[in-house]
Amino acid sequence: MPADSAGLVIGSGDDAAVSLREGAAVTSVDALVEGVHFRMPPFSPADVGHKALAVALSDLAAMGASPEEAYVQLGVPEEVDDDTLLELADGLGRLAAEHGVAVAGGDVTRAPALLCAMTVVGSVSDPAAAVRRGGAQPGDVVAVTGALGGAAAGLLALDRPELAAALEPAAAERLRLRQLRPFPRLAAGRALAEAGATSMIDISDGLGADAGHVAAASGAALGIEVERVPVEPGVSELAGAAGVDPLDLALAGGEDYELLVTLPEQGLEAAVAAVAATGTSLSAIGEVTPGEGVLLSEGGAATRQPSGFDQLRSLRAPGALP
Amino acid sequence: MPADSAGLVIGSGDDAAVSLREGAAVTSVDALVEGVHFRMPPFSPADVGHKALAVALSDLAAMGASPEEAYVQLGVPEEVDDDTLLELADGLGRLAAEHGVAVAGGDVTRAPALLCAMTVVGSVSDPAAAVRRGGAQPGDVVAVTGALGGAAAGLLALDRPELAAALEPAAAERLRLRQLRPFPRLAAGRALAEAGATSMIDISDGLGADAGHVAAASGAALGIEVERVPVEPGVSELAGAAGVDPLDLALAGGEDYELLVTLPEQGLEAAVAAVAATGTSLSAIGEVTPGEGVLLSEGGAATRQPSGFDQLRSLRAPGALP
Repeated sequence: MPADSAGLVIGSGDDAAVSLREGAAVTSVDALVEGVHFRMPPFSPADVGHKALAVALSDLAAMGASPEEAYVQLGVPEEVDDDTLLELADGLGRLAAEHGVAVAGGDVTRAPALLCAMTVVGSVSDPAAAVRRGGAQPGDVVAVTGALGGAAAGLLALDRPELAAALEPAAAERLRLRQLRPFPRLAAGRALAEAGATSMIDISDGLGADAGHVAAASGAALGIEVERVPVEPGVSELAGAAGVDPLDLALAGGEDYELLVTLPEQGLEAAVAAVAATGTSLSAIGEVTPGEGVLLSEGGAATRQPSGFDQLRSLRAPGALP
Repeated sequence: MPADSAGLVIGSGDDAAVSLREGAAVTSVDALVEGVHFRMPPFSPADVGHKALAVALSDLAAMGASPEEAYVQLGVPEEVDDDTLLELADGLGRLAAEHGVAVAGGDVTRAPALLCAMTVVGSVSDPAAAVRRGGAQPGDVVAVTGALGGAAAGLLALDRPELAAALEPAAAERLRLRQLRPFPRLAAGRALAEAGATSMIDISDGLGADAGHVAAASGAALGIEVERVPVEPGVSELAGAAGVDPLDLALAGGEDYELLVTLPEQGLEAAVAAVAATGTSLSAIGEVTPGEGVLLSEGGAATRQPSGFDQLRSLRAPGALP
């Protein structure tokens, strides 16, 4: 596999990889397991490779880090053929190349289900430059990149293709791709770190749950006005066809891999411009206040519970851990 | 989990870990999968945690690196209870503490079999200080730490407890522990790097196979005199009871996680002393020559094939990849 990261000195093929990097290393691990996180179909092998790396890189994005290397551990059932593995590696390798990530090492072993465990390493200029979950301050604006609900709607469209008939074919395909091919917001994460983000997290579990993680780590409350939450185009139509509330998909669907960020209000305008320059949007959706937990409001009044949307849980793959 | 590595600034609990290190990072990944690499019993959960980390650290030892951090990805079947996971974490954590390794991050997911995928990160002072597989030079001595065959004999003793009756109970237990609780030769690896090792690899696949990896990477032949290969005490007795050749266990059994090293002959004496100071032995077993492959000799004459010991393959867990 290519060793094109500037700091990588020894790539795969030896006992270990050797790399030099400026600043501090930022490391995260994440795994996708067949039957838990994906099924093939609807996932193609290339989708699996793409998503495994994207999900791991999303954690680096949420720290404001620049990605450098990825290490891949594949577990392969006996019945999986070499073509499948090559396609998986191709999907993973293409995303790696797009983001300048070197696939620096790997390991293949037999396993009872196809699994792809990723380790990604990036860097920040110094440890203080890493944006953590625990820095949200009362008075900060709460904001989110892109739009939410697309990945959950895409899962619905994949599970029940008849629902997608309510949408233009291109719109349905876009939702499916939000589920199959998430985009790690690496450039937006770096822009937000430079724009003074006080806390940041990627939305994997759902906006409500991930806002809860920031609130708990920061010792503050995150107020979110649900009517300000940007909902991915097509989600309303698909949710309507499925008989579910589109806001449930946006607030609790998860797997959108957008960034939830807090920052001082005076920095918002510059942050919006900086994120726009990376090709996506930044929307203010609420405010950090003293207190604890996540406070959802609608039309100025407290509303629905912020997590535990049981209806949504049933949309997930059976056996999925939160 | 403890964040006791000097360079670790942000440990587990955020999106990613952040660490500063001197010199170059050395990174390796390795995974153990239930039914492929181990079964419980005879492995206890603590054995699994220990071995998963030990096997990964062994790759850092083979580079001459100092270990710093470990990242753990656990796949957990529904029927595995929390006590099992705590015991596994305890076995892993104790070995980590013994070697000053910080368990800096992790991820737990549902999976159809218990699996433990490790990423370990260490350092060398600069990339040139990392000992690779490809540096063996004609005229170098071939040497090995410790003694071989114990892990394969231990597997036999675990699979067929009646065979262990041929041994003192303490000797049988020592063989079993070579299988269940391998010791990563980190201090010996650093000592050998400082003593001028030209190539190094850890013996996971078996002496013959791993010598073949060094020969191929170095573009040279590794000559090994089989009567000089140090065989773990007790292996001969156990092999005798099982009706197998003890040298087959020592040459092809694998999983001993000793270090196979090449170094200039004038450096051998100092290397023997340096390795002795780490609590184990270093034995010269042959010489690097021009040519290719592994040349096994016995009493001065060419002998058995260096790999593909089919009898040994049958001792391994079914479905195990090489």
